[in-house]
Amino acid sequence: MITIHGMQDSGNCYKPRLMMALLGRPFRHNEVSTRDGSTRTPDFLARNPVGQCPLLELEDGRVLAESNAILVFLGEGSPFLPADPFARAQTLRWMFFEQNQHELNIAGRRSLTVYPERAAAATPERMALTLESGNRALGVMETHLTGAPFFGGMAPTVADIALYPYTASAPEGGFDLAAFPAVQSWLARIESLPGFRPRDWLPAA
Amino acid sequence: MITIHGMQDSGNCYKPRLMMALLGRPFRHNEVSTRDGSTRTPDFLARNPVGQCPLLELEDGRVLAESNAILVFLGEGSPFLPADPFARAQTLRWMFFEQNQHELNIAGRRSLTVYPERAAAATPERMALTLESGNRALGVMETHLTGAPFFGGMAPTVADIALYPYTASAPEGGFDLAAFPAVQSWLARIESLPGFRPRDWLPAA
Repeated sequence: MITIHGMQDSGNCYKPRLMMALLGRPFRHNEVSTRDGSTRTPDFLARNPVGQCPLLELEDGRVLAESNAILVFLGEGSPFLPADPFARAQTLRWMFFEQNQHELNIAGRRSLTVYPERAAAATPERMALTLESGNRALGVMETHLTGAPFFGGMAPTVADIALYPYTASAPEGGFDLAAFPAVQSWLARIESLPGFRPRDWLPAA
Repeated sequence: MITIHGMQDSGNCYKPRLMMALLGRPFRHNEVSTRDGSTRTPDFLARNPVGQCPLLELEDGRVLAESNAILVFLGEGSPFLPADPFARAQTLRWMFFEQNQHELNIAGRRSLTVYPERAAAATPERMALTLESGNRALGVMETHLTGAPFFGGMAPTVADIALYPYTASAPEGGFDLAAFPAVQSWLARIESLPGFRPRDWLPAA
């Protein structure tokens, strides 16, 4: 069975758990955390030199890092990953947008807000910059979702699974989603998908 | 013929040009710039709401944004993109690393250093943070390249093309590559690939 090494309270780690839930596939959860040093042990660093989670471990012991690369791998052969190369590239487009312009600002500001050990890094300059850049990313999403129900078009794809977790938790970082009604409707559409599970859900051990 | 709307002096825009050069495929270059407002016109924003380049335009008028999504699309069916889903996911892993931990710090610090209009944003706090985070990303690359010649393993892939431009130009942002000898050897391996072209190269009009 596949193992997902991840942190319960992390949107990046929630992505592959949500994907597996939507696919109806069983998996094992192993709790590790960027907050307690367990992703910076020599053993973990040998498997992922970036020292972050999630980390996917296959039955044969091979590992794969980076939440969005894991989503693509898990989505292969399912309706969540288009087979057509151009449609597939469009899902990747939104996944790179997520990592470059969304996650660092929206998840970053949440982390600076909710984790006490990050208080020293939450300078006024950084809080202002992440708020401005995060709202710009939400605006780009709003523009897209005004014309399409999902990021891959008419049906949900891995791009939606990549964007959902930190958009849903954006208010924890001080973002006001009331200004983005199309984004709010899209969040509700994701939450109504068969098999949907919230962030704190973990599979039975 | 494919058109790449891009900025000559941009590592992200250099990525698809280098890919096309390595594939030996002709293309048309159309100069746009994030510095003169040409990626923020209503027409451009309608094609890419993020207001950035590069933007790939196919013969039939369809467009694709995000440099790394473009690389994957262009690499399809070539030796630069593995067909095996796990090997393909490993190339994506490094491409998401590039956008999340490398580009924003290393290209970001270069932009704050070389573009006069960005001087006000180049605060001491931001310069220190991008230097520290950029050096950490270079350290992750050094660790990987100590054990493998390329990011996809034994042969160059789209992951190498994604990581090359802003690693090569890192000194323009004040990064000292002397501390990363395996990274320097890898840069030389990329530069010796048949068809390699430097950043300022553009196809004949």
